[in-house]
Amino acid sequence: MIDPMLQELSDRVSIIDLLNRYCRALDGMDLDTIPLLFTETCVVSYGPRLESRGSRQLAADLQRLWRWRRTSHHLSNLMVEVDGDTATAESYVIAWHEAPDGQTATLFGQYHDQLLRTPEGWRIDKRRQVMNGSDAGFKLAIHPLQRRPPPPGWTAPDMTAAS
Amino acid sequence: MIDPMLQELSDRVSIIDLLNRYCRALDGMDLDTIPLLFTETCVVSYGPRLESRGSRQLAADLQRLWRWRRTSHHLSNLMVEVDGDTATAESYVIAWHEAPDGQTATLFGQYHDQLLRTPEGWRIDKRRQVMNGSDAGFKLAIHPLQRRPPPPGWTAPDMTAAS
Amino acid sequence: MIDPMLQELSDRVSIIDLLNRYCRALDGMDLDTIPLLFTETCVVSYGPRLESRGSRQLAADLQRLWRWRRTSHHLSNLMVEVDGDTATAESYVIAWHEAPDGQTATLFGQYHDQLLRTPEGWRIDKRRQVMNGSDAGFKLAIHPLQRRPPPPGWTAPDMTAAS
Repeated sequence: MIDPMLQELSDRVSIIDLLNRYCRALDGMDLDTIPLLFTETCVVSYGPRLESRGSRQLAADLQRLWRWRRTSHHLSNLMVEVDGDTATAESYVIAWHEAPDGQTATLFGQYHDQLLRTPEGWRIDKRRQVMNGSDAGFKLAIHPLQRRPPPPGWTAPDMTAAS
Repeated sequence: MIDPMLQELSDRVSIIDLLNRYCRALDGMDLDTIPLLFTETCVVSYGPRLESRGSRQLAADLQRLWRWRRTSHHLSNLMVEVDGDTATAESYVIAWHEAPDGQTATLFGQYHDQLLRTPEGWRIDKRRQVMNGSDAGFKLAIHPLQRRPPPPGWTAPDMTAAS
Repeated sequence: MIDPMLQELSDRVSIIDLLNRYCRALDGMDLDTIPLLFTETCVVSYGPRLESRGSRQLAADLQRLWRWRRTSHHLSNLMVEVDGDTATAESYVIAWHEAPDGQTATLFGQYHDQLLRTPEGWRIDKRRQVMNGSDAGFKLAIHPLQRRPPPPGWTAPDMTAAS
């Protein structure tokens, strides 16, 4: 029997690898790999008007990435919580996209994932994308991060002395 | 008794999670979380004219992030060294900031941290931010990375053949 | 005897630290460190017309980075496969470079590495750099990522409704 702490660390790496494989599949447009990373009945919500249901449909929907000439998806800040055969993972992503005319669109966002342990390994079952911000070239309406507002009457400090 | 190698790997993940939680707190401006990540007597030095002392003051000082409309902090290159109940951590950060007028400021930097194991978990006790570089929009005087200069008489090679 | 799963996790962290140390050495232009990270007979291939052979030559060749005023190399998406005393690692990199005139060049790429366990620790034996994309300022011909093309007749969807 495996030490539970060791099992958890090992699961964490397996889940991180899964999220990494998604980035590689997307940037290489190897869409046949997508159904190996998500459950058959997965739900992926990008925004109020952009959602994919089922891994087969998700792979079909992701063909839209071909409207870009090149893309690069970089994960950071990965946090994984394993609870038996389920897990949650949160990651940050810098998603860079280049259009055929050379214009770029960059998203600074997050993936919030629920995962299931299956006989074939961990799979993403539910994914929600969140947008911290983006450059002017990025146009899709991704779920915005809920950022707390300043208290009433707050005024910005003068940062000149620290500049 | 836990295997020391396993304990160290587990501590490493706990510390990485702590650094990740800081990024989430900052981008969501959830400043109540800040005192849960730093020691009460922490010292955070951003630059020669920008420093916070104590976790309560740090949380208050970080209100300055509200002068931005949106931010996104992405960690990379995390290295953790655990030594009993103390640890050091170094991380790289891409810190993206967007002003209310849409102008952006991006810092390519590092966090150099000293941490303490407390009854409530790992806490950042000392943090020093270092700047590898930044775009033109970023104005704060962060501690510059000490980069070794070329030897006397060094001349840049012509890279045309590799372009 | 160490549990094989624990050994693998520990090797993974050692290899990640090695890749991280490369970024720090490069951004600090601490080129004396380069031969401690690669095997003496390493081969590093950046592109069809840019290659370094041997760790000593690699360190000498990397002096070309001094043509930039500042650089910052950020790794993401690290995947490590250990097989006894050899390993492979793949990482993504955002490589930001600033010229003396303030112009920047950013590469969104990958490192594909083969590593060897030596008496002094893990070393990179073969490295191939791949380019997912870059901004207009980046001019070197790095090996391009092989991205699968759309099927014949594919047309880009109208994303207006999701914008």
